[in-house]
Amino acid sequence: MAFFRPASARDDAFFELLADSARHAVTAAELLTQLIAAPPADRAEMLPRLKNIEHEADEATHAIIHKVNSSFVTPFDHVDILELAAALDDCTDILESVGQHIVLYRMEGLMPDVTRQMDVIVRMAELTADAMPRLAGMKSLPEYWVEINRLENEGDVIYRTLLGDLFDGAVTDPIEVIKHKDIIERLEQGADAFEGVAHRVESIAIKES
Amino acid sequence: MAFFRPASARDDAFFELLADSARHAVTAAELLTQLIAAPPADRAEMLPRLKNIEHEADEATHAIIHKVNSSFVTPFDHVDILELAAALDDCTDILESVGQHIVLYRMEGLMPDVTRQMDVIVRMAELTADAMPRLAGMKSLPEYWVEINRLENEGDVIYRTLLGDLFDGAVTDPIEVIKHKDIIERLEQGADAFEGVAHRVESIAIKES
Amino acid sequence: MAFFRPASARDDAFFELLADSARHAVTAAELLTQLIAAPPADRAEMLPRLKNIEHEADEATHAIIHKVNSSFVTPFDHVDILELAAALDDCTDILESVGQHIVLYRMEGLMPDVTRQMDVIVRMAELTADAMPRLAGMKSLPEYWVEINRLENEGDVIYRTLLGDLFDGAVTDPIEVIKHKDIIERLEQGADAFEGVAHRVESIAIKES
Repeated sequence: MAFFRPASARDDAFFELLADSARHAVTAAELLTQLIAAPPADRAEMLPRLKNIEHEADEATHAIIHKVNSSFVTPFDHVDILELAAALDDCTDILESVGQHIVLYRMEGLMPDVTRQMDVIVRMAELTADAMPRLAGMKSLPEYWVEINRLENEGDVIYRTLLGDLFDGAVTDPIEVIKHKDIIERLEQGADAFEGVAHRVESIAIKES
Repeated sequence: MAFFRPASARDDAFFELLADSARHAVTAAELLTQLIAAPPADRAEMLPRLKNIEHEADEATHAIIHKVNSSFVTPFDHVDILELAAALDDCTDILESVGQHIVLYRMEGLMPDVTRQMDVIVRMAELTADAMPRLAGMKSLPEYWVEINRLENEGDVIYRTLLGDLFDGAVTDPIEVIKHKDIIERLEQGADAFEGVAHRVESIAIKES
Repeated sequence: MAFFRPASARDDAFFELLADSARHAVTAAELLTQLIAAPPADRAEMLPRLKNIEHEADEATHAIIHKVNSSFVTPFDHVDILELAAALDDCTDILESVGQHIVLYRMEGLMPDVTRQMDVIVRMAELTADAMPRLAGMKSLPEYWVEINRLENEGDVIYRTLLGDLFDGAVTDPIEVIKHKDIIERLEQGADAFEGVAHRVESIAIKES
């Protein structure tokens, strides 16, 4: 019932913090795209920036937790804000873990369609960051979650094609198969994490309508 | 306190939608059983039916979400209904993913005891579909969740035996080991997903008692 | 607002049950440490004790569920108590699964730094068991969750080093790589599970403050 609870200055701070968190996920997705495109020898030195973004996302999450703590009135349920913040944080965590594992595994070439998985994830991150401020007025949110669901399906098709190729002889060394499987599965989890954010937004919108 | 809130026509619609969703899980479990029993060359053409059931389960879940949305009075907490619907949807999603992966991995023979994992899952799905309408009167639900817990333990023993056999030389090609491990783990997650539904039913029953 | 809701005899029972559950996790962590240190041939006979602890933890969890059920007044939200109990139960479940898998996989030597993962987990379990009774007065809880977060980061560094070593030639047989990866990942999930408990305690403390 946003109409009866117009966004106050206090409310704006919540949406700004949620948008901050989502923007960290966008930056993480962009950094990971660059890391994947970089020569293998250059990847390790790109990790501290990715780790740093994950740390900033953690701080944004804690800022949200403390803001919920110190606010008697919040724009919607305390628990919903906390769960949405945690879901956003998951996205950045997973993206950071992908970068770490690519370096840990000392991977040389990645499967080419991994860049298509990343394109989907970058787009999901951007749409999520765009949607957070619109929570203030509960405006144009269905467009957001419908498109996120569509992208998740698109990512799922790419993931399944990659996995089929991987086990159809694209990679023959079993230890390399383990590594590639782990990376494409983590990216699939990343896409799922953004869909999880959209599900929470949909759930909040339903309660508020 | 079902006694003081007798199931109305409106309430019945909720239980019917939840039962619909559970029946999709039964159908998915039956289709997956057939897919596993089929000659490998025939499996790919069975996937569209499985995908279709997963899609119908998604639609049932969205129907529940919208029904919760449009109802001021619901038979129990909004959040509990949404989480129960999501838990039911997970079951069908996992079963569909098993079928997809068996085909993606181009698997020939599966380990024989996979059919025992499936027997447990089919039974869990049937018990779940039978229990959903009984939520209306909060009747005979402990029998349901006690039996689900027993089946989950039975499935766990089968899973552990399969995994022990797999690494005890039943399969020697490492890439084949990766595939079999993935399938039996996903089936174990399927059994866990049905237990997750039962936990939510138990939690609702506790609140209502 | 613990000040206005002093812990009554009834409340004490809740905190005692939660502490019971956490102490089961401590015992599971200690038994797993012993199992890992034991000669491989002696490990299988240590499993029933570990399984038994997991079973007792399940019973503690059900005792909490029934206590919540039968109590009109609880020291904090019903749902929060149930989720905290479930999160504690997860810790013991994961530790038991590690022991089971080490035996199922018939593992000989484990990677040496697995004992460092276990040291972190034992410490997390002890801190958790110490913290549960302090929920009664909401006292000294930030020290607990800050230290748990620090330990989780420490565990994460150990996990990543182990994984890097594993794929850097420490183990060359692909089937052995699969086993070691599974064990160190499960231990990492164990550390995450204790962090999950701390997050719930933090969330409860925020609501009550």
